[in-house]
Amino acid sequence: MSVIGARVPKLDAPERAGGRIRYVHDIVVPGMLHGAIRRSDRVHARILSIDVSAARALPGVRAVITANDIENRPFGHGRDNTPLKGDRVLCSRDEIAAVAADTEAIAREACRLIRVEYEDLAAVFSPEEALAPGAPVLYSHVPDNQPFHYDYAHGDLEAAVAESDEIVSDTYRLHYVTHCCMGTSGIVADFSAAGALTVHSSTQVPHMYRRDLAAIVGLPPEKVRVVQATIGGGFGSKLDIYPFEPICVWLARRSGRPVRLLFDREEEFVGSPTRQPAIFHMRSGARRDGTFTFRDVRIVLDNGGHTSWGATTPFVMMQTFSSLYRCKAVKVRADVVYTNNPYAGSFRGYGNPQATFALEAQVDALAARLGIDPIDLRLRNVQEPGEVTGQGMRFHSIAHKECLETVRERSSWTMKRGRPGEAHLRRGVGVASLLHVGGGAKMYRTDGCGTTLKLDDFGIVHVTSGSSEIGQGSDTVLAQCAAEAMGVRLEHVRVHRVDTDLGPWDVGVHASRTTFIAGNSVLMAAREAKKKLLGAASAQVRRPVERLDVTDSEIVDLETGQAVSTVGKVVRALHFRERGDVIMTSAYYEPPSQAQDEGYKGDVSATYAFGAQVAEVEVDVETGVVRLVRLTAAHDVGRAINRLGIEGQIEGGIAMGAGYALTEELKVSRGVVENPRFRDYHLVTAPEIPEIDVTFVEQGDREGPFGAKGVGEAPLIPVAAAIAAAVEDATGVRFTSLPLTPERVLAGLRERS
Amino acid sequence: MSVIGARVPKLDAPERAGGRIRYVHDIVVPGMLHGAIRRSDRVHARILSIDVSAARALPGVRAVITANDIENRPFGHGRDNTPLKGDRVLCSRDEIAAVAADTEAIAREACRLIRVEYEDLAAVFSPEEALAPGAPVLYSHVPDNQPFHYDYAHGDLEAAVAESDEIVSDTYRLHYVTHCCMGTSGIVADFSAAGALTVHSSTQVPHMYRRDLAAIVGLPPEKVRVVQATIGGGFGSKLDIYPFEPICVWLARRSGRPVRLLFDREEEFVGSPTRQPAIFHMRSGARRDGTFTFRDVRIVLDNGGHTSWGATTPFVMMQTFSSLYRCKAVKVRADVVYTNNPYAGSFRGYGNPQATFALEAQVDALAARLGIDPIDLRLRNVQEPGEVTGQGMRFHSIAHKECLETVRERSSWTMKRGRPGEAHLRRGVGVASLLHVGGGAKMYRTDGCGTTLKLDDFGIVHVTSGSSEIGQGSDTVLAQCAAEAMGVRLEHVRVHRVDTDLGPWDVGVHASRTTFIAGNSVLMAAREAKKKLLGAASAQVRRPVERLDVTDSEIVDLETGQAVSTVGKVVRALHFRERGDVIMTSAYYEPPSQAQDEGYKGDVSATYAFGAQVAEVEVDVETGVVRLVRLTAAHDVGRAINRLGIEGQIEGGIAMGAGYALTEELKVSRGVVENPRFRDYHLVTAPEIPEIDVTFVEQGDREGPFGAKGVGEAPLIPVAAAIAAAVEDATGVRFTSLPLTPERVLAGLRERS
Repeated sequence: MSVIGARVPKLDAPERAGGRIRYVHDIVVPGMLHGAIRRSDRVHARILSIDVSAARALPGVRAVITANDIENRPFGHGRDNTPLKGDRVLCSRDEIAAVAADTEAIAREACRLIRVEYEDLAAVFSPEEALAPGAPVLYSHVPDNQPFHYDYAHGDLEAAVAESDEIVSDTYRLHYVTHCCMGTSGIVADFSAAGALTVHSSTQVPHMYRRDLAAIVGLPPEKVRVVQATIGGGFGSKLDIYPFEPICVWLARRSGRPVRLLFDREEEFVGSPTRQPAIFHMRSGARRDGTFTFRDVRIVLDNGGHTSWGATTPFVMMQTFSSLYRCKAVKVRADVVYTNNPYAGSFRGYGNPQATFALEAQVDALAARLGIDPIDLRLRNVQEPGEVTGQGMRFHSIAHKECLETVRERSSWTMKRGRPGEAHLRRGVGVASLLHVGGGAKMYRTDGCGTTLKLDDFGIVHVTSGSSEIGQGSDTVLAQCAAEAMGVRLEHVRVHRVDTDLGPWDVGVHASRTTFIAGNSVLMAAREAKKKLLGAASAQVRRPVERLDVTDSEIVDLETGQAVSTVGKVVRALHFRERGDVIMTSAYYEPPSQAQDEGYKGDVSATYAFGAQVAEVEVDVETGVVRLVRLTAAHDVGRAINRLGIEGQIEGGIAMGAGYALTEELKVSRGVVENPRFRDYHLVTAPEIPEIDVTFVEQGDREGPFGAKGVGEAPLIPVAAAIAAAVEDATGVRFTSLPLTPERVLAGLRERS
Repeated sequence: MSVIGARVPKLDAPERAGGRIRYVHDIVVPGMLHGAIRRSDRVHARILSIDVSAARALPGVRAVITANDIENRPFGHGRDNTPLKGDRVLCSRDEIAAVAADTEAIAREACRLIRVEYEDLAAVFSPEEALAPGAPVLYSHVPDNQPFHYDYAHGDLEAAVAESDEIVSDTYRLHYVTHCCMGTSGIVADFSAAGALTVHSSTQVPHMYRRDLAAIVGLPPEKVRVVQATIGGGFGSKLDIYPFEPICVWLARRSGRPVRLLFDREEEFVGSPTRQPAIFHMRSGARRDGTFTFRDVRIVLDNGGHTSWGATTPFVMMQTFSSLYRCKAVKVRADVVYTNNPYAGSFRGYGNPQATFALEAQVDALAARLGIDPIDLRLRNVQEPGEVTGQGMRFHSIAHKECLETVRERSSWTMKRGRPGEAHLRRGVGVASLLHVGGGAKMYRTDGCGTTLKLDDFGIVHVTSGSSEIGQGSDTVLAQCAAEAMGVRLEHVRVHRVDTDLGPWDVGVHASRTTFIAGNSVLMAAREAKKKLLGAASAQVRRPVERLDVTDSEIVDLETGQAVSTVGKVVRALHFRERGDVIMTSAYYEPPSQAQDEGYKGDVSATYAFGAQVAEVEVDVETGVVRLVRLTAAHDVGRAINRLGIEGQIEGGIAMGAGYALTEELKVSRGVVENPRFRDYHLVTAPEIPEIDVTFVEQGDREGPFGAKGVGEAPLIPVAAAIAAAVEDATGVRFTSLPLTPERVLAGLRERS
């Protein structure tokens, strides 16, 4: 292997670092107007009137639209959202009107000039309130305010409870955080004279987005072209369509001009999705020897006023409950409950950080009860390769055990555990594990990805895959796969951005699937291209094809070890002749996984990723300040394709997890976001990032490209659980909600003493 | 055939007519500056000094470059041009300095502020002057001012002269005209932080341009990406690289910013190429029965101060002399001569309108001497199918005879010829024929074109060919080819613009090759895709593949005649499943033609196009005004793919030919263009366009797509010759130079009387 496993800077690093890369914010098309949205001033109210006359009269305003001006088709997972709200608002994010104007400033000023009369309605701000008898009903066709339920079970729960020697029970409450993508949301909508729509979008799922957006705005999908702009961070936030996108299309339609609509930072906090807040009521049991017996979980999700992907996070939560450890009987019930709060989307981990926080807290509680070291207890319950879990996941490869052993060793766990010290600065270590899909997730009828590959006259390999680079570095990984499979130098590979007209189908970037799925797709196309290349070379240099290989972009005679041509020369000679040819190949990779059955069972991913992390914290028991000192991580990555890239993903995931655990909170008070700015929303910054120790456990996966598994989401998942465990080790207090701000920690310590 | 032979509006007609299509003028990239060029004030002078200090000091100026600031590599067919001229200027177009600034106005103002000191050098303004003994020498390594010669011959000239019963001899002088593209020249040069260059260009030859531009600006070609902007007319003007293009790249490099450089209209007249002016000294002979015996031609080309593709027009001129009619002995000598005039590029017809003007004048002169009707004389000398000409062209299909007979019939030739009348308004008819390549021209090692084709989820066929739409309508023709070959509706086909990174190789748009070469390439890819599609459909609907076909975008059971699925459904079902697939194909078509040998012989095109036209004019012998009343055209198109499109091409060619014959002249006086504006450069306008009668002779070509031949250039070629013949029929005067302005006509009539 010459490229696989190397440390490769992201191919677009110079562009990103040099400020030369172009986000949707940078796209200008001729005649373009600027859009802005007027949002609700209330969280639950009837709209009595909307007066746009002052907005329309403002010089430079080209179009003002309200629900009356458009075909306001319902959309979204719950069909409970519309681009613009005409009769009622259900949360503070709700869109009431929109303006297209010559400048963004004019558009925003016009939005301010729109007068809306409301009649306030009774509102609910927590699932408990929404579930209380006589609670206000948000949607008349959902009188119990519960649009969705999930019921999962395997094993005989009653019997398993009965055989348990220890049972623990608790409730965990997880809060609102948001993605904080450095690039705010945006779109450019651009109609041709013939009525075909091109959108420049930062969607993570361009091919599905094309279909969905077309339906919302009433176009046949073949008239919609989605060109993916450079994405300034995704993390799941761009997995769904949100109202601003059809709104922008309608503004373009109304004004007869292209329109660009960008969120400012405050709007990004208020108008984009959050991580799904959740309440877990949970019981777990174990036998005296540490064998887990059962888990019984009831999850309550605060769905907010409309439904986006957050409502589907139980799919992932239940995987962790059912299968992170061997467990005979597991029952998971999830209730999704409407409130007048903001609504959640998908967010890196997709419910798993929340579920892992709850599950791992109970594992630690059982360990304490049983008097077994938490790592030992986990090791007693990890699965073996080949094992099939109660939910039907088959672990062809699993290095969970090795991950736990590695972090125990590298964190000095044995030396540090249970030694908080006596001064006001207490130390503690805590551990948590994770399970996540690592080979895609068959949530749709296909989980595949297509690739086309073209060799140009200079030996450059141009890869157009359906997959999406959202800053995670997947284009670099795909370039490595192509370079390795073809034998060309990495700098001779270019990976191109998605354009639904030009590129092949892909489901989109979610479920940590890109390295695995797109990687395999690229491998298929690259191997085919290499075959064609060597066939052409063989004819040109008149040597049998078996005697030739490609190394370092040269055609090498394997017998003599000498270079006999170059890739570029072969390509040129192939088409600069009578009956010439070009080398272009295409491939489609569909993973060998299954959709779940009605009981949520099935081998939904082609492989699964595991990992374990030990957090070491220092807690100032006088101020409540928790400092994350060190995080030791071991991840079952199958095979590291880009070491630098995975390190970056793991470090980034740990930073994001640390923020979730310690500092970040979107403060929602009576449905309103109170801190929509970075000054008040505390992202972890460089000085707060701990010492990080990363180990890749590389046992190779039979199906992964070069043995790799997907690990994009994994490193974030156990961080909060490990930190909470470490804080408990330092202070004796187990916190069941986050973030562990000084206020919450001090309050917890006081409560205990 | 459901689509082939139909009348189809250009697919982008709504965009073009609606002003929504985007030319290079409309492209904006972030941080973009605007470039402008300072050209020479002299036609031949030593540059003593260039003072750019005032330009540099102008607020808003970001870069000023002269030859000293760049690596000024020689380029072009004669390696006698450089981006910027540092020591000497050789024609009025020459580039001395360039500016990049915040606005175009600032850049142009800064150019004006540049002070250049010159020392004038003796100049020459005609080939005759340049060939005179003691003439100033333009390039010391070309002391005779003749950088290129062409010598072609077949047959025994002396013997053929000896057996001639009649011999005619004359000299023909053809003038400067220019393309007058509605979109002026322009380019956007944009470097990445890593030093890779993207250019948005209106080049007609994007793949070769990539390689050539890279060499000129000193980049490896793999670091250059050419994205073709919508082209506002090409006609050959964008077949070469001109100094403004590397200049813009250097401005981008110097300023560290993207730069857009656009010509204004005056600059377009002065700074872009012209049609090649030429002098033909020519003798022709015939036997009494009308059989042509010989032609002896000396061509002198005014090359101007630098060399572009105009210098290569003898390649095409000699084809007409050698092969438009059967002729035993032909000798062609062409001398290319430097002068201090502007320089010519390629221009629709590529020397052929000039050669045809001379040749057909001599045919008419022989007809008069022999007392044979001009059409009869031509018919006596046309070749038969299967015949090989002295130059080696094999006419597999040739409908020259049918074209002549058609125009005789449809123009009422017999009734109108030789009846000028007696009043001051004289009428006349004249005929001319043409031969041009119709199946590409193997001027490079490959004359091929690649295509990739993708079916998307909605049954849309996306075609990415290497070929270039320059307004001629080729994308519409390619869409028809794909639609017909696949059985899908025309509106379900999209043809995508060239991007050298994404699309396959093509030589470029020249030599009327796109319908033929790219059409065949699209056919190959489409047939392969249809095969895959039917294979998938067969499995899905469980019927044998032989029983299925695609009609109107539906899958039809041939036995029942019933639609059993649709293209979109088959594609979706193909990839929305385990082990799914996408339908993408690629193909490369190389025509069965040969490069010429050293004596310019060879079957250079896969087929050849013929045609004949009869012009009917009315000449006011008192004012000299010539009115083109009617033009009857018959063209050997093989097979009309888009009737509306070819009609448009033929009508446009006739209008352009009428301009060449009657009104257009770039007035070059002592090397300076005196009329660089539409007010003074008389393009023909709508009221001047005659009644046009077009007949397609469709005998089908064995190799052409659906039998089609290329005819993009053909209709322009004989127009001027036919008009001059008609004027002679009306007035008795044969004009040997153009345009036939009232002044020239009156002078000619006076001279005769």
